Amino acid sequence: MSKYHPVDEAAIAELQQIVGEKYVWTDPEKLEPYSHDEVTGAKYIHYPEVVVLPETAAQVAEILKLANRRLIPVVPRGAGTGYACAAVAYEGGIVLTTERMNRVIEIDEQNMVLVVEPGVRTSRVQEIATEKGYLYPGEPSSSDSSFIGGNVATNAGGLKAVKYGTTRQQVLGLELVTPEGDIVTLGGKLKKDSTGYGLSQLIVGSEGTLGVVTKVYLKMAPRLGHVVDLLAVFPSLDSAINIVAKIMQSSISPVCVEFMDNKAIRCVEEFLHEKMPHSDKGFYIILSIDGNNEEILEDQCVFIDELCTENGALEVLVADSTKIWKARKSFGEANRARSLIFSAEDTVVPMSRIPDVVEKLSALGQKYGVSIHVAAHAADGNVHADILKEEMPVETWNEQLPLLQDELYEFIYSVGGKLSGEHGIGFKRLDLMKKYCNPVELKMMKAIKKALDPNQIMNPGKIFRLD
Amino acid sequence: MSKYHPVDEAAIAELQQIVGEKYVWTDPEKLEPYSHDEVTGAKYIHYPEVVVLPETAAQVAEILKLANRRLIPVVPRGAGTGYACAAVAYEGGIVLTTERMNRVIEIDEQNMVLVVEPGVRTSRVQEIATEKGYLYPGEPSSSDSSFIGGNVATNAGGLKAVKYGTTRQQVLGLELVTPEGDIVTLGGKLKKDSTGYGLSQLIVGSEGTLGVVTKVYLKMAPRLGHVVDLLAVFPSLDSAINIVAKIMQSSISPVCVEFMDNKAIRCVEEFLHEKMPHSDKGFYIILSIDGNNEEILEDQCVFIDELCTENGALEVLVADSTKIWKARKSFGEANRARSLIFSAEDTVVPMSRIPDVVEKLSALGQKYGVSIHVAAHAADGNVHADILKEEMPVETWNEQLPLLQDELYEFIYSVGGKLSGEHGIGFKRLDLMKKYCNPVELKMMKAIKKALDPNQIMNPGKIFRLD
Repeated sequence: MSKYHPVDEAAIAELQQIVGEKYVWTDPEKLEPYSHDEVTGAKYIHYPEVVVLPETAAQVAEILKLANRRLIPVVPRGAGTGYACAAVAYEGGIVLTTERMNRVIEIDEQNMVLVVEPGVRTSRVQEIATEKGYLYPGEPSSSDSSFIGGNVATNAGGLKAVKYGTTRQQVLGLELVTPEGDIVTLGGKLKKDSTGYGLSQLIVGSEGTLGVVTKVYLKMAPRLGHVVDLLAVFPSLDSAINIVAKIMQSSISPVCVEFMDNKAIRCVEEFLHEKMPHSDKGFYIILSIDGNNEEILEDQCVFIDELCTENGALEVLVADSTKIWKARKSFGEANRARSLIFSAEDTVVPMSRIPDVVEKLSALGQKYGVSIHVAAHAADGNVHADILKEEMPVETWNEQLPLLQDELYEFIYSVGGKLSGEHGIGFKRLDLMKKYCNPVELKMMKAIKKALDPNQIMNPGKIFRLD
Repeated sequence: MSKYHPVDEAAIAELQQIVGEKYVWTDPEKLEPYSHDEVTGAKYIHYPEVVVLPETAAQVAEILKLANRRLIPVVPRGAGTGYACAAVAYEGGIVLTTERMNRVIEIDEQNMVLVVEPGVRTSRVQEIATEKGYLYPGEPSSSDSSFIGGNVATNAGGLKAVKYGTTRQQVLGLELVTPEGDIVTLGGKLKKDSTGYGLSQLIVGSEGTLGVVTKVYLKMAPRLGHVVDLLAVFPSLDSAINIVAKIMQSSISPVCVEFMDNKAIRCVEEFLHEKMPHSDKGFYIILSIDGNNEEILEDQCVFIDELCTENGALEVLVADSTKIWKARKSFGEANRARSLIFSAEDTVVPMSRIPDVVEKLSALGQKYGVSIHVAAHAADGNVHADILKEEMPVETWNEQLPLLQDELYEFIYSVGGKLSGEHGIGFKRLDLMKKYCNPVELKMMKAIKKALDPNQIMNPGKIFRLD
C-alpha cells in the first residue's frame, strides 16, 4: 500500500487557492497528455490525480509545503519529451508542470549569461543567444519541443556536446524550490565557485527528485562565424566507427561527431520519403566543425576528407545541413513510425569501446530476432540503440526485452560503461539501475535523497526506490 | 568538549597494523609540516595527533573504519599548499596524507583520459599529457607543488580556466573511500553520464569532508600547436579592467586573462629583483591565446593590440612567457615576503562587477590603513586580494581584519558574488561562510554531510560546523 495520501477535495481546494482554479486540472481528458512521455507501451501510462500549473517559485513553494503536510507526491514536468518516464506520476499525486513558467528573466550580454524559467523551450534559448550574437550550445534532438528545465533535470546532451559539453556544463546556477518548500539560488552568474559544495551540479541530472528548478542561469558561448557539416559515408560499421578516435585525437575540435548505422539510415529515409546518399549500404559519420576563418575550415575539411578516404570512406560530402540534421534528428520518430513499441537504450561507454558495443548490439538483434537501429553521439561514447518490437507478440516482447537488456548491460558495464548518457533513469530503468549501479553509489544517492527530501514527496520512485 | 576521542596507544597500534609502523608518525618534529598550510598566523597552526601515510585505497578504507569505530577525526591532506586551512587538524586526530599515493595508474591515449592517484603533483599530470601530445589544462599557480587530489578537493581554478574550466571540468570520475570506509568509483572514462546523481561533481570541491579521493580520472584536451602570451599595460585600473569584457565578447577564446594591479606589480618586482615593464604606474592585463595556425594567432594579436590601444593601453607587448608567468605566479609569495602575516581573499563576482570590486578594495585599503594587492583571473571574475598586515600591531590586525572583511563581503554578496572562487572555505572562512552563505543552501550542505558521514569523522569543522 502506498505511503502517500490521495489528493482529496480539501487538497484540491488548497491547490486552487495557491494557483487559481483555472490552473488546477482534474478532468481526465486534460490529464491524458500528462500520463506518459515519449516512452511507448501501455504499462508506462499512468494518470496523475491532478495537474497543477504554477506561475511563480512562490507558488511552487506553497505546493511543496502542502505536499509535505498532506504526504502527496509531486512530479515536476517540462514538455514531456523524456525517454525515461521521469515525468509521469506512477505513485499518483500532483503533476507540477512548468509550462506557465516560461519567462526569459534576463539577457545579460556583458556576462554572457541568460536567466530563464524552466518552461522556456530549448530552441527559444538558442534563438535568444543567436539574436545577441552568441551561441547556446545545448542541443538535444528534442530542442524544438523540450523545455530547458527538462534539459537540466536529465543533464541533456545532444548534438554539440562533443565540443561544448552537456547541459551540466551550460548551467552556472539555478533557483531551486527545495522539497520542503524553501526557495534558494545555487550558483549564479559566476564562472568559478568554490564556496562550499557544488549543489547546483548535484541538482543537474537529478530528474526532479531533489526539488523543483524554477530558474536557470545559462552560459552563452561566443558564436563562431562559420559552421560546416560533413557527411562521410563508410561501407562498414568498423570503418565508420574507427574514424572517430582518429578525428578526436587530431587537433580539430569538432562540434559534433554523429554515427548512424545502415538500418537507421534506411528507416529514416523511408520515414522522411527522402533519398539519402548511399542508403543501400552506407554507414554515416556526420561531422560539424566551426570556426571564424573560412580558409582554416576548408583546410580542416580537406584533412578530414583525406583521413576518411584513407580509412575507406565511400564518399565524403559537404552535407546539406538542413537535410542531414533533419535525418539525424528523425532517428527516434522514424523508429517509432516503424514500430510504435520500441525501447530506446541510451548506453554510454568510453569512446574506444563503441565498436564493441555496436557489434554486440548487432549480435543481440540477431539472437533475439529484433531490429536494433543505432545512432550514436560517437565522440561522446553515447550509443543510442532503438530496439523495435515490430510484429513480435507483446508477451514475447515483454519476456525477451529484459533478457536482451540484461545481456546488453552486462556487456556495457564490463567495458566501463553506464546505463544512460543523456536520457536519465526515471521509472523506465529502475530495475536496471538497481541491478547495475554500484551498491555503494546507490546507497549514497539514497542517503542524499532522504536527507534533502525527508518526506519523500519529490518524484518518488524515480532513479531508485527507497524502500 | 570535543565529541571525538583522542588517538590513544591502541589506535596507534591499529594504524601501524594497517599501514606499517614506518608510516605512522607521532614525533612532533615530523608533525610540524602538517600543522599548517599556506595560511600564516599563529592562530591557524594546529598539530595533528598523528600523521598516517597510506599507500592504497584499501588502507584508507581501513583507517576510516577505525576512525568511525573510535570516533577519531580524519583530515585528508595533499601537498599542504591550500589557502583555507582545510588540511589542518583543528579537532586533533589523524592527518591522512596522500603523498605515498602518487602513482600514475593509466595513460589512456585513445580515450584521452589520465587515471592518477591523488598524491601526483599537478605539474606531473601536465607533463604526462604533454609527453603524449595532449594538454592537461588544470593550472593553479601552485601547480609545481600542489597535488592533484588537493586540486580536486578545492575545485582549483588557475590560469587556464577561462578557456578550459576549473578542475571540476577536468574530472570525469574518481575513486572515493566513503566516510564509512567503502570504496566506490563515481563516473569513469565517460564523457557523458546521466545515470543517477552526479556524485563525482559533488565530491569535487567538498574539501575532504565527504570522503577520501583515492583515484582521479582526468580529461586530456588536444594540445594546440602555438601559444602566444601578450602583456597589455594600462595607465589605470579602470582602463585595464574594462578591456576584459570586450575581449571575452569577441570571438577570440583566450586561454587566460589575468589582471595585476600596480601595487602587486611593484611587490613582485621587488621580490624577484627583476625590472617589470612600466612598473612605475602600469596595470597589467596578461593574455594567453592558443591555436594551430600561426597566421590566425597573429591576426588575433593584432586585433587585441588594436583593441587595447583604442582603450588607452600604454603598450601591448608579446610577453616573455617565462618572465611574465613567473611574475604572475609569484603574487602570493611576494606578498608573503613583504608581510609574513597577510590574508588572501579569493572573491568571485560576475565578470562585469570586477571594476567595482577592485575600487571597493582600494577604498577599504585606505580606510583601514592596510596595503591590499590585487591580482585577478579577470575573465573568470575571480579577484584575489592579499591584505597585508605589515607593521600593524597584531591586536589591531586581529580586530580590524574582520571588520574589513565584513565590509568587503557585504559588498561582494550585494553584487552577486561569493566568498571563494578557487581556494575553498576550509577553516579560515568558517565564520564568513556562516554569515554570508544562504541559510537554505547551508542547511542543504549540512544535511548531505550528515547523510554521508553519520559519525562526522571526515575533516570536521571545515566549510561549516555541524553543531
